[in-house]
Amino acid sequence: MEVKPIGFIKSDFQQKFGTPRQGSLSPSSRAQLILDKEWRNRGIFSGLEGFSHVWLVSFFHLNETARRFAKVHPPRLRGKKVGVFASRSPHRPNPIGLSLARIVEVSDDTLLLSEIDLVENTPILDIKPYLAEADRPSEYRSGWTEHVSLLPVSCEFSETALAQIESLVASKIIRSRERLESLITEMVSLDPRAPAYLGREEAEFAVWVSGLNVVFSYSVNKFTILKVETINETTVSI
Amino acid sequence: MEVKPIGFIKSDFQQKFGTPRQGSLSPSSRAQLILDKEWRNRGIFSGLEGFSHVWLVSFFHLNETARRFAKVHPPRLRGKKVGVFASRSPHRPNPIGLSLARIVEVSDDTLLLSEIDLVENTPILDIKPYLAEADRPSEYRSGWTEHVSLLPVSCEFSETALAQIESLVASKIIRSRERLESLITEMVSLDPRAPAYLGREEAEFAVWVSGLNVVFSYSVNKFTILKVETINETTVSI
Repeated sequence: MEVKPIGFIKSDFQQKFGTPRQGSLSPSSRAQLILDKEWRNRGIFSGLEGFSHVWLVSFFHLNETARRFAKVHPPRLRGKKVGVFASRSPHRPNPIGLSLARIVEVSDDTLLLSEIDLVENTPILDIKPYLAEADRPSEYRSGWTEHVSLLPVSCEFSETALAQIESLVASKIIRSRERLESLITEMVSLDPRAPAYLGREEAEFAVWVSGLNVVFSYSVNKFTILKVETINETTVSI
Repeated sequence: MEVKPIGFIKSDFQQKFGTPRQGSLSPSSRAQLILDKEWRNRGIFSGLEGFSHVWLVSFFHLNETARRFAKVHPPRLRGKKVGVFASRSPHRPNPIGLSLARIVEVSDDTLLLSEIDLVENTPILDIKPYLAEADRPSEYRSGWTEHVSLLPVSCEFSETALAQIESLVASKIIRSRERLESLITEMVSLDPRAPAYLGREEAEFAVWVSGLNVVFSYSVNKFTILKVETINETTVSI
């Protein structure tokens, strides 16, 4: 069976590493849907303006070679396995993602979103409105996830990082200092590190976010943002 | 991009006509997921037992030739159009469905479900657990659907239909009279008729449900179930 993207996501997140595992964890994130030419100027979003959220059905295009495992290791289970159909892992029989995103603005062919868990250039297969009557059962249980909640770790900016942000603001490379700092905090405090790195206290990590390279480290239950620098001449959209 | 079903749905609903438009409207419905051989005996549902609901990502295999319309007519808007991305219509750029179903039983490779809006033999592309933390935003608005709620129409069984059900129970063709009557009521009272038929008071309609042919009519704000008969020698699973 063949499917064809109806568009692509332009997102703050430029690499898999650091992209939030759920959109609701990242209220400061922003994304724009770039609609395929075939669907422009046809009112395809008409009526969506009254909804608060949409489902994005996406393709996990950055998965390496297809993995055909039936079980996966959810990061927060620290080594324990569950069946892939009891998880939201991207490594699935069909690499199809389901994300709930908040609508910031919709008009004509423009769809601006927040609460994003999709990396730059993710192909979108479908968009569906969030329907309370269909999508919010009155009783529900969330299985193993109820016992391993995602607790953010504290996250501080170093003097160097703050000075770098100050300078990016002064030179107008960054428009919203507040959104940048919130976004970096949201990305890092939910611990994007792979399980293999969890014991390595002094290691440095880097995430790309909207054209910036953010370097951070972890020590004694705390993340520290060490550097925030431009990657290249790319315009920063924050 | 290619996708491949991970299994198929065995459902009460044997035709598009009469299949509920949302699973939550049909608590009496039942379905079983028939897992593809490739995924059996591998614990792919392990960990799902603690969840109340799953998302089924499906393929609308009964759509006729691909329709490339950007707008659709939702039945309850009685003629008004909205963009297809503001609707859950099956006629979409990619014919991908998203259904929330309640888990009745899960063990090894068996997944029994209720609250079904999928027709018999629907190919399933993915199964994902319902995660309260990701899927239930605390604030939400459901746009145009908030003003056109689905109100069930009253539905009565004729003497003939009741006698036929009695006889199906006596000959053990039906196991659960109660579930059959609820299921028929749920299917019919939500008005499966196409908009073109809404004015035709004396017309008779028929739906197939679990090997039974159910004939009904509409008159003066009320549906009447006229007949409930076996279609052929097919075993009835209700």
